[in-house]
Amino acid sequence: MTDTKTRRQTSENRIVIAREPGGPDVLDVVSRPVPTPAAGDILIRNTACGVNRPDQIERLGFYPAPPGAPEGLGLEVAGHVEALGEGVTGFSPGDAVCALVAGGGYADWSVAPAGSVLPVPDGVPVADAAGLPETVFTVWANVFETGALSQDETFLVHGGTSGIGSTAIQMAKAAGARVIATAGTAAKVAQCRELGADIAINYRDTDFETVVTEAGGADVILDMVGGGYVQKNINCARVGARIVSIAFLAGSRVEVDLMRVMLKRITLTGSTLRARPVEEKARLAAAIRQTVWPWIAAGALRPLIDSRYALDNVRAAHERLDSGEHAGKILLDC
Amino acid sequence: MTDTKTRRQTSENRIVIAREPGGPDVLDVVSRPVPTPAAGDILIRNTACGVNRPDQIERLGFYPAPPGAPEGLGLEVAGHVEALGEGVTGFSPGDAVCALVAGGGYADWSVAPAGSVLPVPDGVPVADAAGLPETVFTVWANVFETGALSQDETFLVHGGTSGIGSTAIQMAKAAGARVIATAGTAAKVAQCRELGADIAINYRDTDFETVVTEAGGADVILDMVGGGYVQKNINCARVGARIVSIAFLAGSRVEVDLMRVMLKRITLTGSTLRARPVEEKARLAAAIRQTVWPWIAAGALRPLIDSRYALDNVRAAHERLDSGEHAGKILLDC
Repeated sequence: MTDTKTRRQTSENRIVIAREPGGPDVLDVVSRPVPTPAAGDILIRNTACGVNRPDQIERLGFYPAPPGAPEGLGLEVAGHVEALGEGVTGFSPGDAVCALVAGGGYADWSVAPAGSVLPVPDGVPVADAAGLPETVFTVWANVFETGALSQDETFLVHGGTSGIGSTAIQMAKAAGARVIATAGTAAKVAQCRELGADIAINYRDTDFETVVTEAGGADVILDMVGGGYVQKNINCARVGARIVSIAFLAGSRVEVDLMRVMLKRITLTGSTLRARPVEEKARLAAAIRQTVWPWIAAGALRPLIDSRYALDNVRAAHERLDSGEHAGKILLDC
Repeated sequence: MTDTKTRRQTSENRIVIAREPGGPDVLDVVSRPVPTPAAGDILIRNTACGVNRPDQIERLGFYPAPPGAPEGLGLEVAGHVEALGEGVTGFSPGDAVCALVAGGGYADWSVAPAGSVLPVPDGVPVADAAGLPETVFTVWANVFETGALSQDETFLVHGGTSGIGSTAIQMAKAAGARVIATAGTAAKVAQCRELGADIAINYRDTDFETVVTEAGGADVILDMVGGGYVQKNINCARVGARIVSIAFLAGSRVEVDLMRVMLKRITLTGSTLRARPVEEKARLAAAIRQTVWPWIAAGALRPLIDSRYALDNVRAAHERLDSGEHAGKILLDC
């Protein structure tokens, strides 16, 4: 390993690119100059970074980086502030922070818009905080803002032990909702319960639509499956329910009967985090700092970490992601 | 015609029922006792009542009346207050009013929950006000509340010369939005423009998706067509758009690609008016009285009336409805 100081002095920054669309072996660790933060940006010396589903989609060539995004894969980091771009206030060099980045998160140094940077919350090691931004921003934006989940409502989340799912279970419980989660193995179902789910369903042997309907239906559903789940979500949704899609692992082209959407006044919607403008991420960050960070400090929410890999071993991390066997976040140590 | 006074004294009230599911000839005018208003209800001596799409669906046997609804077809009336149920304030016998009713609107007398009753707005004849409640409540609830249409946004409405469509065009213009409407004949397209549409499209010879996309896309879409329109609506919707379905004349079972719903953060939703609880209708009525009634008084909104029939001639009115040739509301004079 090169010494950090030396690398910075020689302007060497490891980043990860996908040579071409394909499997984990198209990922290459390459060297680039350490970036300079533009006005409004913060340069972070990363301790760790998070591996996310959108990175896999990008590696496969289906999710091109938005124009102007930093080069390389990776959408979230944690580390210490190294330098502030012009006009940035509220942070100082050396602060422990975690951040959403528009790209280039798998790296020694990353640049984040100041509005997407949050202090590492109390009680979380910096190296673990890299697993927070992408899931917390996604759950907050989709479940609490778009979905407007409120206390005493019933929340259904699919993929309960994914990074998003495990975060969603804990945040919904912290907000006082009743939580139903689905997962694909007995071990993952048990893990959903440990995370706080009131009802956990193994979708391989149990029909979630039946269980949720018998439990009175769901007010908010967070779905990353799509495909045949879309109609089943509609069927087990309550009057006025909000169904929010954040991915379509089983496909986005579906045959669906919208009659019940009208009759039950259901909202079908969805979003991606990366496409949101910088100002909106800053607004989300402020709301998260106010509401979610105290949940973490109070012990109600912790990042569920599946595994850690050295940055140079990024291909192994993506093999783990591709396997679908992980529960919680996969992190890279930088 | 029987004298009104005589009929009330002899407790004769004409109502209209569907003998069995079928065409206009299953409709029968039958005699029932004049209803007595329960606590919280208002008895109205109708001058006229409106004929609406849900009445047709109910006649066909697909839209059963909700439990507890008054017997007989008809969802909106205008006339004069005849008697107040216990606890009703704010209205006096003789007041000119229009109202949503849960059923039994095609009648000499109807009973409405007080919260669904509004004064006849200034400048509108009582006999024409029967064409207001169903369309104004529907457009307000779906376009302004659920759709949250705001000034300077672009609003797309299909069926621009239907009762709903003609009301939606005028209300959206009154609110300062840009309006695009579709219709199926050159005459109806011209009528959409007269009602205020900035762009009117004959869907028989022009692809609305292309025109709306070239115009920059729609922020709010009010759809009563469904079928193949669902995907086209999604395609020409802007980022953050709200697509609201209030009927599925071309079918509710659709094949649709939800990827763009997620990527553009679109909301797909819908509602029916009749299924909403009484308290919600009262809330809608208060908002309508505050915002929409002044638009009517200012001349920005008038009911577009296609044709009038005597109540005894209700079958002819439904033949007109079935023909799809009407532009604006079909009314029955009681």
